[in-house]
Amino acid sequence: MNKLAVIALGGNALLRGDQLGTIEEQEENATETFENLVYLFKEGYNVIFAHGNGPQVGNILMRNDAGEQLYNLPQMPLDICVADSQGGIGFMLERCLLNVLRKHNIKRNIITLVTQVMVDKNDPAFQNPTKRIGKIYSKEEADKLTIDKGWIFKEASKKETGWRRVVSSPQPLDFFNAETVEQMAREGNIVITVGGGGVPVYIDEENNIRPIDAVIDKDLAAAMVAKRVKAEEYYILTDVPFVYLNYNQKDEKVLEFLNYKDTQEYLNQGAFGEGSMAPKIKACLDFIKNGGQKAVITEAKKLQFKEYGTKITMEYDRHDVKH
Amino acid sequence: MNKLAVIALGGNALLRGDQLGTIEEQEENATETFENLVYLFKEGYNVIFAHGNGPQVGNILMRNDAGEQLYNLPQMPLDICVADSQGGIGFMLERCLLNVLRKHNIKRNIITLVTQVMVDKNDPAFQNPTKRIGKIYSKEEADKLTIDKGWIFKEASKKETGWRRVVSSPQPLDFFNAETVEQMAREGNIVITVGGGGVPVYIDEENNIRPIDAVIDKDLAAAMVAKRVKAEEYYILTDVPFVYLNYNQKDEKVLEFLNYKDTQEYLNQGAFGEGSMAPKIKACLDFIKNGGQKAVITEAKKLQFKEYGTKITMEYDRHDVKH
Repeated sequence: MNKLAVIALGGNALLRGDQLGTIEEQEENATETFENLVYLFKEGYNVIFAHGNGPQVGNILMRNDAGEQLYNLPQMPLDICVADSQGGIGFMLERCLLNVLRKHNIKRNIITLVTQVMVDKNDPAFQNPTKRIGKIYSKEEADKLTIDKGWIFKEASKKETGWRRVVSSPQPLDFFNAETVEQMAREGNIVITVGGGGVPVYIDEENNIRPIDAVIDKDLAAAMVAKRVKAEEYYILTDVPFVYLNYNQKDEKVLEFLNYKDTQEYLNQGAFGEGSMAPKIKACLDFIKNGGQKAVITEAKKLQFKEYGTKITMEYDRHDVKH
Repeated sequence: MNKLAVIALGGNALLRGDQLGTIEEQEENATETFENLVYLFKEGYNVIFAHGNGPQVGNILMRNDAGEQLYNLPQMPLDICVADSQGGIGFMLERCLLNVLRKHNIKRNIITLVTQVMVDKNDPAFQNPTKRIGKIYSKEEADKLTIDKGWIFKEASKKETGWRRVVSSPQPLDFFNAETVEQMAREGNIVITVGGGGVPVYIDEENNIRPIDAVIDKDLAAAMVAKRVKAEEYYILTDVPFVYLNYNQKDEKVLEFLNYKDTQEYLNQGAFGEGSMAPKIKACLDFIKNGGQKAVITEAKKLQFKEYGTKITMEYDRHDVKH
């Protein structure tokens, strides 16, 4: 049976930090990323893609703000903005990947889903919203929005001046249509799902599915998908070829092969950046602990050169690692 | 075997003309619509939904314009805006329908797809763009946008003053993942697809799938889906309980049962409004001509009271019509 891999697309795979976010940039990045993944399809892998939406949903939120100011259009809530981004990015990825596959004469269907992800309303993350989203406001604007819409604000990051809305980032517990996604992927269809981490929803007291103002980490959502569909492998495509110890310092050290226990210890020691590498490592460990064979963190363009990439497996033995 | 019905949601089913387009309005309309369709699920129908996106994509285009003006954000092309609307509306519909089904203890999965629809680049519609989209511009603004972006403008409709961008509305030829959609629907999953008529694409000289600035009529797209999946029945849910001859005139006449031949003759005589009922009638005739058993045009809230609705079948015999 062919292996099933879940691949989380983030960072350069979609949009580089120095880019404006035009559609041409996004299509070029996506096409380059997929060109580097062609070997996986040639090797017969079944694949499910998850993807980020940070810059895109940021722009959608800004456009909502601008539309209200200029044209008095009603603003859409965060859940609709995330769902919008699943549509736009999903279509763009599907089309670019189809064209790469056509070029290489690989016949696969690509199925792009709008996806809800279940969270727990009592997740402790809701006590401490930390994820900055949307535009930078002045103190006065922020205070007004707190009164008008109940939004919570924190000061913007060091590089910026002003206030930004913050929302919580709860744990993804499950995603809708998991069985269908697994079946479609195991039959050879490429599935794109949980875009932007998925649209977060919960079950309220009246047994209704309700959206909640939050964003889900896309690497955690992708790892949850990988567990749920019992994928053999999990890839996080990001902006660095490897995971490092003491990243960007004199004694920086490449980590190529990692086992579960050592990785957990590094993580406990705080060896990985809290806002960057640590959540990716947690996502990989979660996947391995739940039966995944191999998790890989690397750059999309390095993936096909197999000497690149940090490979995390349960037992540390580089000779056992199939790569 | 259970019958498969394709249902096109438009008009009041999503948003009424006098509404602003807030998410609360949309959710309330959608929930009311789905409550009226519960009987179909109870009767065991398999269902595929298509839906319009007129007001929503209009607002997305306006927000893109506002985002560029206020924050210098790059505008997304029409294809991405339509795909965005598939995400946002699709999620909203899926969630509202799931809640209606939960309330009635009906267990069905709902699968919402981002969907590309194939059109012909040589479709004569591209010679004569007629579909007004986005905001109203002044003559000066319109002239500048013609130079900057190659957009085509026509004067706004009678109720408005100014100029609006026009795009073509080509025939939908096929949609992506048709076999998968048919299979999922026949297995009992409810599928939401071709939102807003689908994102129009064509195959260029280099064999690439490319988007094209156009919008596809949602009723025609839904009829194409109904043909392609060999649905038994096709429903267009709109703002009137029946199709009429001489609509809104003294000699207005309800048409309840229609056969293919008479309907075609009425259509040829220009009995139906060109921008309103005529395309819906064409969509129904196309479906019936290609083997569909029954096409119905009515209001969502009237559908379950089976004395309402215009039923079009191949042979006119009201006693033969199963309704």
